[in-house]
Amino acid sequence: MRRDLLDEDALDRIHAQAMRILEEIGTEVHSPSMLEKLAAAGQRVEGTRVRWDAGFVMERLAEVPSSVAMRGRDPRYTATIGGGSLVHTPVGGPPFASDRERGRRDGTMSDHVELVKIAHASNALPMMQGGTTEAQDLSYLSRHLEMDYSIIRWSGRPYIMYGTSGPKARDSLAMAAIAAGGVDELQKFPGALGIVNPNSPLVWDELMVDVLVACAELGQPLAITPFLLAGASAPVSLAGGLSLLVAETLAGVAMAQLVRKGTPCILGCFFNGVDMRSGGPSPGLPESVLTTFAGGQLARRYGLPLRGGGALCAGMVLDAQSAIESTMSMWATYIAECDLVVHAAGWLEGGLTASYEKMALDIEMIRMFDRMREGIAVNDEQLAYDTIADVGPGGLFLAHQHTLERFRTDLFMSPFFRSQAYPTWQKQGSRTTEDIATDQWKSLLDSYEDPGIDSAIDAELRDFVDRRAAELDA
Amino acid sequence: MRRDLLDEDALDRIHAQAMRILEEIGTEVHSPSMLEKLAAAGQRVEGTRVRWDAGFVMERLAEVPSSVAMRGRDPRYTATIGGGSLVHTPVGGPPFASDRERGRRDGTMSDHVELVKIAHASNALPMMQGGTTEAQDLSYLSRHLEMDYSIIRWSGRPYIMYGTSGPKARDSLAMAAIAAGGVDELQKFPGALGIVNPNSPLVWDELMVDVLVACAELGQPLAITPFLLAGASAPVSLAGGLSLLVAETLAGVAMAQLVRKGTPCILGCFFNGVDMRSGGPSPGLPESVLTTFAGGQLARRYGLPLRGGGALCAGMVLDAQSAIESTMSMWATYIAECDLVVHAAGWLEGGLTASYEKMALDIEMIRMFDRMREGIAVNDEQLAYDTIADVGPGGLFLAHQHTLERFRTDLFMSPFFRSQAYPTWQKQGSRTTEDIATDQWKSLLDSYEDPGIDSAIDAELRDFVDRRAAELDA
Repeated sequence: MRRDLLDEDALDRIHAQAMRILEEIGTEVHSPSMLEKLAAAGQRVEGTRVRWDAGFVMERLAEVPSSVAMRGRDPRYTATIGGGSLVHTPVGGPPFASDRERGRRDGTMSDHVELVKIAHASNALPMMQGGTTEAQDLSYLSRHLEMDYSIIRWSGRPYIMYGTSGPKARDSLAMAAIAAGGVDELQKFPGALGIVNPNSPLVWDELMVDVLVACAELGQPLAITPFLLAGASAPVSLAGGLSLLVAETLAGVAMAQLVRKGTPCILGCFFNGVDMRSGGPSPGLPESVLTTFAGGQLARRYGLPLRGGGALCAGMVLDAQSAIESTMSMWATYIAECDLVVHAAGWLEGGLTASYEKMALDIEMIRMFDRMREGIAVNDEQLAYDTIADVGPGGLFLAHQHTLERFRTDLFMSPFFRSQAYPTWQKQGSRTTEDIATDQWKSLLDSYEDPGIDSAIDAELRDFVDRRAAELDA
Repeated sequence: MRRDLLDEDALDRIHAQAMRILEEIGTEVHSPSMLEKLAAAGQRVEGTRVRWDAGFVMERLAEVPSSVAMRGRDPRYTATIGGGSLVHTPVGGPPFASDRERGRRDGTMSDHVELVKIAHASNALPMMQGGTTEAQDLSYLSRHLEMDYSIIRWSGRPYIMYGTSGPKARDSLAMAAIAAGGVDELQKFPGALGIVNPNSPLVWDELMVDVLVACAELGQPLAITPFLLAGASAPVSLAGGLSLLVAETLAGVAMAQLVRKGTPCILGCFFNGVDMRSGGPSPGLPESVLTTFAGGQLARRYGLPLRGGGALCAGMVLDAQSAIESTMSMWATYIAECDLVVHAAGWLEGGLTASYEKMALDIEMIRMFDRMREGIAVNDEQLAYDTIADVGPGGLFLAHQHTLERFRTDLFMSPFFRSQAYPTWQKQGSRTTEDIATDQWKSLLDSYEDPGIDSAIDAELRDFVDRRAAELDA
């Protein structure tokens, strides 16, 4: 099983079909101002339908940088997307939150703050995400302000802004600019990232074009992510969906470059099969793994960073289903070498619930994969010839100095993964992974330390939030 | 994260150290007859210590075929180890059996038969394994006969024989010969495979040399598998353990070739970290994944098929821990392209329990991985341009003819992995993976069909089993 599952000919054919789709079928673009821009740039616009010139699209693609360095409100926190590391973020979007003591419930602002703190304390998630759970106890019209504020205040890392529409994105960007110390600083060092999803197949709706424009105007990076479901929003055959992925993404790239040349764009691959029994997406199953591998090949072909993977699952609780789906998905993430990994921790129930226990377990999974990425060092110390000679045939390495000096660093040890005797396990209460996960999120939350914030910036942020909330809720 | 994690220089250094270990430290060989053979072949033998000539070992290695075609008692069932497919077998060795209705219990002969039938019915496991659970209700001295018989009778596939000592292996081989229609036929088409484990570090004990000799004499393949535990039976640093893996395995290869030139040998990689909290092995954690990748590189370097991976876990029940460990281990299995995958289904609790539910779930995992191995076809039909044009921007593929015709074959669907709404899931009884797994093993058992057996062969087998059991139990 190879990550480079498509050969050059297959990639060429997908590309050729994407160009043909753009030129012959075209995309809908529901934004009068963008349609004007596109017409001015020589694209064939009829009503809301845009038929794209392939050469034009590929020229715009060439303007995109191959990576983007993000900086948080707290300058200690940086993350380069496209620089060879995986940049993980917590889940975003769940209307519900759950932990085993308080149960499954509507998300609240207090949950959001707790989840931000847990994620921050883990040090496994270099970027945060607005809306890790939806703060349903606050006004729908203005709660995006408090959710993004909670990241800026309690974490200070760069983040994916809560941007489900242009106006909300503009609020988020205004706050990001305050946090960065002004619009110029923000433009120099992007701190907020926008996710835009064309409505597959082939529709760029007004809300999303608006978010795209708002981010591009300030040079904040865009993860352009068609939401593809093989058999629903895409053909049931994966190759066809990949051609849609390319067509929709590159159309977004071209629009972003028209707004501001050099806007960092990330190819987003969120492409699952549909579960024909329910119509829902099937993350972590073979289709999603294969499309993540293919997404990686396409991103490298187009010179774009890749957004993909995550700890995705359809499972309802932290059982074997959720664990398998998430582990499958994370393997795809690491093998495809996704640059930006949205929903890397806390995702449960198809993304509808932010689970505290799942977040703790997912964070441990990241630690596990990061250990694997280190590989095996082969040098005299690690080859340990003298130790082998010293222990000799039939000996035991357990108490040898070489072991005692190194086991803490050389061996992966985890509260989640224990090897023990069944009677011991029973005697200790027959604890399952879920039980341990409850301990772990509490322990992360306990270990959280406030990174602090400049009081003038905090005051300016609070002022903005309170003023805008009052306006929006009026 | 790459499966070829070691570069040529690293592989060279591991090889060089393995040769140095063989030449300078040597191995113990606790078998007077084998020591005589080795001395006669020019190896330095002092007492039970053998110091090997590296050139001699490498010459013997060159005599090993690169693959071996196995044939079962029923000639419809074949499996080539080293031919590019993964040959999976059920778990072997667990003293306990468990299912959710009858609980965790001592394994019985009836459990063994049920597990053979479930594994056989799945069609996911081209080879069986004697001792899938230990038939503890039968005499310790003779039960190996009934366990191997249950495979020959109820499955007819090739199998890993129950061979924990030379005499038991000889019984197994005698039965395999009857099943094959005689010793000559068995030698032409191997039907039984022996697993031999040197006692790491660097001891070949009498029991195992005896099994090795018994198999080699009849040309039955050997999976030579050091049981390496980083920090216990191997240095805590993985590179050192890999050099032991090579040294111990190639010593075994050389012995097998001395007995019979051309004996098929498989490089076995079963190399985990130790859990320092208990001293037990940690399957499915980073060490085991990395060593499986490295084992694959070494096997390819030496031109040997690879035995490795499996659905291994340390978890006690079918919770997220077991699921994650097993999924990690299966990814390593598929990426390293293990040729022989022992313990691919049913392994629970560090291999101490054969779980019916786990077997059903593992079988489904194999199906999932096999689907992924197929990759993505890119051709006109799968690119589906006309369908995309037909559906058009904003359309839905769900009810399109292209979808309806293909979704049953193109999409992976599984009773274990459902995408559904939380309220629906609750209404249907909040069933977890474990609940579904109980249904699934029952359904596999129900679907089992007796492959039939030639009555003369069966009579001869029964006669052998009954006679030998009477002798052994006397």
